[in-house]
Amino acid sequence: MTRLDSAIRRLSAQRNLLNWAANEIEPTGVILELGLGNGRTYDHLRTRLPDREIYAFERTLAVHPDDLPPEDYLVLGDIFDTLPLFAERMGPACAALIHADIGSGDDALNRQLAKRLSPLLEPLLEPGGLVLADRAFDLPRCTNLSTRTGITEGRYFVYRRARESGRPVAHRPSHIA
Amino acid sequence: MTRLDSAIRRLSAQRNLLNWAANEIEPTGVILELGLGNGRTYDHLRTRLPDREIYAFERTLAVHPDDLPPEDYLVLGDIFDTLPLFAERMGPACAALIHADIGSGDDALNRQLAKRLSPLLEPLLEPGGLVLADRAFDLPRCTNLSTRTGITEGRYFVYRRARESGRPVAHRPSHIA
Repeated sequence: MTRLDSAIRRLSAQRNLLNWAANEIEPTGVILELGLGNGRTYDHLRTRLPDREIYAFERTLAVHPDDLPPEDYLVLGDIFDTLPLFAERMGPACAALIHADIGSGDDALNRQLAKRLSPLLEPLLEPGGLVLADRAFDLPRCTNLSTRTGITEGRYFVYRRARESGRPVAHRPSHIA
Repeated sequence: MTRLDSAIRRLSAQRNLLNWAANEIEPTGVILELGLGNGRTYDHLRTRLPDREIYAFERTLAVHPDDLPPEDYLVLGDIFDTLPLFAERMGPACAALIHADIGSGDDALNRQLAKRLSPLLEPLLEPGGLVLADRAFDLPRCTNLSTRTGITEGRYFVYRRARESGRPVAHRPSHIA
């Protein structure tokens, strides 16, 4: 497989997964795009979910001008500075979907980034909230769905926070238990 | 169509066309990759055409380390400086395939670039030589095949230099003329 093949597969998997998530997410809650980049996936998210508030985080703005988020929804700066402030402003469990496409070609650095970012991300997720990411995160309150979507091909990671802790068990009819 | 959709379509069209060209090119002649970029299409070309000499031209090296061409096949510098020197060294009609994926998001600048580049490219093409490009070029000795490949969707331009000037007419049986 050439790097051109690989790029096509990666972008196709990304699109499939974003489309899947757009159908799966909870009816309320904001969306976070971590790593705006050139704005391709931001454009996809806002097109698929026109009624949702999407906040885009980016350290260095390099977005296509057509995909520049509205000023109030663009959070510029180092994510380890901006995300805690955002969490403080919005309160916990505000997000229905977090899409993280950050990191570089350096795998060791990426693992470290994901490790540091994980405890910041998890409290932001509402019950049922989804994380889609291009690398593995450590989210103990979430279920790792990465192998269940059938469309990620090991290129994407998917996590969902439990909908309401304990409730599914409490409501489960006794004949199923 | 979102920009993510558009990127997938563009890369797919690019791949289809490179695959088509790999089957179509003349059995001899070098390949020129104008604009190495991150090396994705270079990797595709060298994989599809392992026995061909591929020269990659780039102003500012930003290629993935795995896709760095051998030193003798990497031509660094402004293409308007390096291409005339290359033509002098290799002689005219040396190229079986020229793939040009250069230019920026600035359409006016891109048109100007293609206009300046056209008279440098055409003499390099051997009879039957192909140009694939992400923009239109002005190549009067070539046939524009852009609408005939069925796979370009207006995203790519394809030109072929006549195989041997005059010969097809001279050899054409009189009952066809």
